[in-house]
Amino acid sequence: MLRIGIIGASGYSGSELMRILSNHTGDIKITCATSRTYAGQPVGRVLPNLRGLVDIKFEDPEVDQIAPRVDLVFLGLPHKTAMTFVPKFLDHNKKVIDFSADYRLKKADVYEKWYQEHTSPHLLEKAVYGLPEIHRDEIRNADLIANPGCFPTGAILAILPALKYDIADAQGIVIDSKTGMSGAGIAPSEATHLPSRYDNFTAYKVGSHRHTPEIEQELSLASCKDVSVAFVPHYVPMSRGILTTVYLRLSKAVSTIELLGIYTQHYKDEPFVRVLDEGEIPQTQAVRGSNFCDIGLKVLEKTKTAIVISAIDNLTKGASSQAIQNMNIVSGFPETAGLMYAGLMP
Amino acid sequence: MLRIGIIGASGYSGSELMRILSNHTGDIKITCATSRTYAGQPVGRVLPNLRGLVDIKFEDPEVDQIAPRVDLVFLGLPHKTAMTFVPKFLDHNKKVIDFSADYRLKKADVYEKWYQEHTSPHLLEKAVYGLPEIHRDEIRNADLIANPGCFPTGAILAILPALKYDIADAQGIVIDSKTGMSGAGIAPSEATHLPSRYDNFTAYKVGSHRHTPEIEQELSLASCKDVSVAFVPHYVPMSRGILTTVYLRLSKAVSTIELLGIYTQHYKDEPFVRVLDEGEIPQTQAVRGSNFCDIGLKVLEKTKTAIVISAIDNLTKGASSQAIQNMNIVSGFPETAGLMYAGLMP
Amino acid sequence: MLRIGIIGASGYSGSELMRILSNHTGDIKITCATSRTYAGQPVGRVLPNLRGLVDIKFEDPEVDQIAPRVDLVFLGLPHKTAMTFVPKFLDHNKKVIDFSADYRLKKADVYEKWYQEHTSPHLLEKAVYGLPEIHRDEIRNADLIANPGCFPTGAILAILPALKYDIADAQGIVIDSKTGMSGAGIAPSEATHLPSRYDNFTAYKVGSHRHTPEIEQELSLASCKDVSVAFVPHYVPMSRGILTTVYLRLSKAVSTIELLGIYTQHYKDEPFVRVLDEGEIPQTQAVRGSNFCDIGLKVLEKTKTAIVISAIDNLTKGASSQAIQNMNIVSGFPETAGLMYAGLMP
Amino acid sequence: MLRIGIIGASGYSGSELMRILSNHTGDIKITCATSRTYAGQPVGRVLPNLRGLVDIKFEDPEVDQIAPRVDLVFLGLPHKTAMTFVPKFLDHNKKVIDFSADYRLKKADVYEKWYQEHTSPHLLEKAVYGLPEIHRDEIRNADLIANPGCFPTGAILAILPALKYDIADAQGIVIDSKTGMSGAGIAPSEATHLPSRYDNFTAYKVGSHRHTPEIEQELSLASCKDVSVAFVPHYVPMSRGILTTVYLRLSKAVSTIELLGIYTQHYKDEPFVRVLDEGEIPQTQAVRGSNFCDIGLKVLEKTKTAIVISAIDNLTKGASSQAIQNMNIVSGFPETAGLMYAGLMP
Repeated sequence: MLRIGIIGASGYSGSELMRILSNHTGDIKITCATSRTYAGQPVGRVLPNLRGLVDIKFEDPEVDQIAPRVDLVFLGLPHKTAMTFVPKFLDHNKKVIDFSADYRLKKADVYEKWYQEHTSPHLLEKAVYGLPEIHRDEIRNADLIANPGCFPTGAILAILPALKYDIADAQGIVIDSKTGMSGAGIAPSEATHLPSRYDNFTAYKVGSHRHTPEIEQELSLASCKDVSVAFVPHYVPMSRGILTTVYLRLSKAVSTIELLGIYTQHYKDEPFVRVLDEGEIPQTQAVRGSNFCDIGLKVLEKTKTAIVISAIDNLTKGASSQAIQNMNIVSGFPETAGLMYAGLMP
Repeated sequence: MLRIGIIGASGYSGSELMRILSNHTGDIKITCATSRTYAGQPVGRVLPNLRGLVDIKFEDPEVDQIAPRVDLVFLGLPHKTAMTFVPKFLDHNKKVIDFSADYRLKKADVYEKWYQEHTSPHLLEKAVYGLPEIHRDEIRNADLIANPGCFPTGAILAILPALKYDIADAQGIVIDSKTGMSGAGIAPSEATHLPSRYDNFTAYKVGSHRHTPEIEQELSLASCKDVSVAFVPHYVPMSRGILTTVYLRLSKAVSTIELLGIYTQHYKDEPFVRVLDEGEIPQTQAVRGSNFCDIGLKVLEKTKTAIVISAIDNLTKGASSQAIQNMNIVSGFPETAGLMYAGLMP
Repeated sequence: MLRIGIIGASGYSGSELMRILSNHTGDIKITCATSRTYAGQPVGRVLPNLRGLVDIKFEDPEVDQIAPRVDLVFLGLPHKTAMTFVPKFLDHNKKVIDFSADYRLKKADVYEKWYQEHTSPHLLEKAVYGLPEIHRDEIRNADLIANPGCFPTGAILAILPALKYDIADAQGIVIDSKTGMSGAGIAPSEATHLPSRYDNFTAYKVGSHRHTPEIEQELSLASCKDVSVAFVPHYVPMSRGILTTVYLRLSKAVSTIELLGIYTQHYKDEPFVRVLDEGEIPQTQAVRGSNFCDIGLKVLEKTKTAIVISAIDNLTKGASSQAIQNMNIVSGFPETAGLMYAGLMP
Repeated sequence: MLRIGIIGASGYSGSELMRILSNHTGDIKITCATSRTYAGQPVGRVLPNLRGLVDIKFEDPEVDQIAPRVDLVFLGLPHKTAMTFVPKFLDHNKKVIDFSADYRLKKADVYEKWYQEHTSPHLLEKAVYGLPEIHRDEIRNADLIANPGCFPTGAILAILPALKYDIADAQGIVIDSKTGMSGAGIAPSEATHLPSRYDNFTAYKVGSHRHTPEIEQELSLASCKDVSVAFVPHYVPMSRGILTTVYLRLSKAVSTIELLGIYTQHYKDEPFVRVLDEGEIPQTQAVRGSNFCDIGLKVLEKTKTAIVISAIDNLTKGASSQAIQNMNIVSGFPETAGLMYAGLMP
């Protein structure tokens, strides 16, 4: 039996982990869920959707108390806080799947430029970037898996085949992303205040979002090119979902059908990437709550542009169900265990 | 193996059945899904959330063609159309779970007053009203199950214990319901036009909604009282969920805690009714996409009023997952098979 | 020229005052807008909709600095804070229109039961409840106008005629209200966190909302009856608007047409109350951003219930434009000056 | 007095015209509003926000009946239908402001490629494209004004200065637009069905939207360059507003401050274009219901990209209030008459 601990379990990452794991088909058990705010309270009282389904109480995040009771931990903590927990769980020889950005970037200086000082840079090399569609083999043997950011998941899956097959310029790729507000986390803020968002649409962190280096790193590594992107995220007045519209400058002539063929071929063995047919356009609702990434595309011959669109749920394929996909891989479960369910639509 | 047919499968009832059944744990198989509009097209092309999960094509609804391939059919057809199919499938000795209102009312004259002429009134007695919390035993042996309306499900479950235990007046019960727009079905209309609904709230069919006689019938039968209700539904600018706020005139003095005790006791063996603790208030998000009905209540002593609030998802407990609960009962599966998953929250 | 000061101008009440006053046709000028948070910043930088339309800067709320420059002040401050400002402005002989609840209740003990200690109870008698449809004549000569709460505005206007004409029981009136989230104010909170509200519907403060005594007071005073209400507010996943559904027990037989006649007659000279025709149902969008209150009704003879529905915009007729209506009355402008514009629909 | 006719007045363009004109300060009168569907019904019964504000009835669109009673007509009709009315009103020597696309394109062959056969191509030269920020002088003397499309309004205003000042490549400009659903008009459709859109985000008409040639034409004419664009519109689950994110390839080095300076200078005399300060990002709510276009921008030096973002309300600056701006210009009213009001925010 795999004993699972969830550190920082009352936020969206944690609550989604519990929701999804409550229907996992493997021999697993959540033995620990921490929350400083709700320590001592039943999970189902704090998260009413889990009432009757998850029968444990939140506890304080005490590593030494928790380590003996778990084989693998998910860390749903903010950046920087994660750094204080990851080394401790690794010292206890526990597998760690970390939702924060702390171990996603390979280079400490890049991390420090976009975030803050890194206190365990020696782990950066050791950490595996947990996007199974690129790093499945390394994930299998990893001790520390850095679960990808939500925007990078959608953007990388949309762009990679075009770069790998040398079809598009690697410089100045335009990534226009639109996210539901759950991407901002469970803590209320001006950004998530309903009257500020409702019947409103805007961009934010224009060209300066922290997911930029993560996207550039992974695309560069996987394509062996020096990739640069112009990345603009936007707030959609909705709860879940990221739609990413990518504009690629074509470096060779290719038709929509040909490019679809390349994408279909590239992802043919991936259980959670669905390349749509010609004329179909991804929509976030079709993947809501699920682990799928839907991709559609179109070539505009006049302007030598390929438009590739991907849709994910930021809380599932963009976070928690992708983490469970990683758990399945690293723990020897079938990769799809507990994850082959449909998006909630409508 | 239970072979399942879904007649009228491209609407919300049908698509939700397929979504939920794709994770059912019993030995079942969807062998047929009909849609006049989409006959010949793959389900996953029409309903993109099911892409890769449901591998059949829509076909035309030809009873004679379908009957040999199914043991049980769900009918997701409009009122009146259902009447033309139900007798045929019964003649083929198939179990029928019907989503329409055609067999919910016991008396043909009541049906004909609120709907239209009834062409198979002899089946009204035979049909079982498919609310397991009231009619579980009859469902077990039923051939024809009339799956309840969405509003009646939430209203009846909220009101029944208070009537059974003689705590409230049976006359003039106020039922103020609020529904997400998926309750209007998949066909676009002025009522569901997004700009007409967005940042807008209104009532409709004030005191004249067709679910009124259904609520009054079931409450009267189950409580052995002559129940009358003032029922007003409202459109909420959202997709899923019904919150029902019931105002009961207390016929005897009772405290909030006492009334909660009565409800908790009444529903203690029900897997899908969750009576919340004192001070907790149901919310539709906690049950979104799930088969749960959450109930909370409060007594106002000054005005001798009990306020009982229930939350369901109109497409699941209010329609498709409740139908599967009925299928489980009538087919000998564990009642909770494939249904014990959490609401999608946030 | 009327010189206007807005104390607490960066919240919704204040920003709406500036939006509406920027199109007022009278000889007025906003000479002061205060905000501790944004003191020194141009209004149009903080409130981008007002950019280019309101050309002043926020300043600190220093009464002695402000008094010489204003003839009338609007106070858009929280309960309790208002009490510290109102007496000072009155001492400077300024007209005060106060948005808080601090001077709405006539009896200090009722106020103290529902809110907190009152530090200027002697002003409670002096204050006029600023609902022009009831207190127009007193408003004309008032120094201190207590601008009504949003829920009371919609509820009182919906109920009063039925009580005045002795058509309904005064005890146990059911008031089921639904409000957009801007009613919670500009400060982010768990209640207004978009992912918590989106595709979600719930009740709150069931039977315990602070607007209850305000509704009971004004209805009792105006009808000369002892009125009690069961009042339940609900959060609607939208920004603006309150729909109130009132359930009245009829004390005499009356038809829908007769009751409509009574309401139409009662409000025939009111410029901002629109009694709809038979069969029409109010909707919040029709009054969005406007000063109108729309009322529709229906009698259910079977259950001897009258259902009266009112729609207002909580930020305008429920707050800022009603305050300007009061300003017009107290300052000698035509009552409709600057207020006869249509709701924003769709 | 200017006598105004509105042909096709029950749709969004028409209802917004009536809403805005009801507060126009000039000597105007709406003498005629047509609607085949609602002929004979009072405007305020069909459009409840206008109840009490617009006191005429809808009538049938009979040109000969209408012409004697109007000086200027707005045509809020679908493409193709407009072509059957415009020549007739011109023959009656009436000024025409047409909302359709029928007279926006200068070349009949381009029109016929994207739309259908043109039945009055001789009028294409005569028609003036009604974007005052480009064509103010020609509008002044025009008989036929082709009111711009909603997307082109936001896109052209965002792009033009960069092209005029030779700062960006004219080929392959990326225009990623996001629109509220009122852009789809008042007729319900699958696209506007609330459950299909809610908590959903998607693109549509990828690279094939009919506004593409309109954008390319006007940018080419105004910049004397051969402009081509990759234009992708997206549906936002909201009612009003268009945010357009433009990605320009810089043809010369320029900083954010320098580019802002160019835009500020270019629009310094425009009453309805607000160039925001450095770091400010446009949002649709700030212009909701208003005639403003807000523009913000940022230069990404690493990728030599300028990101320019504009926000308009598709129904006002993108349609009806822009049409009134045109009416003001062509009729000799101050250009801002009746249009200087703030966006509805929140």
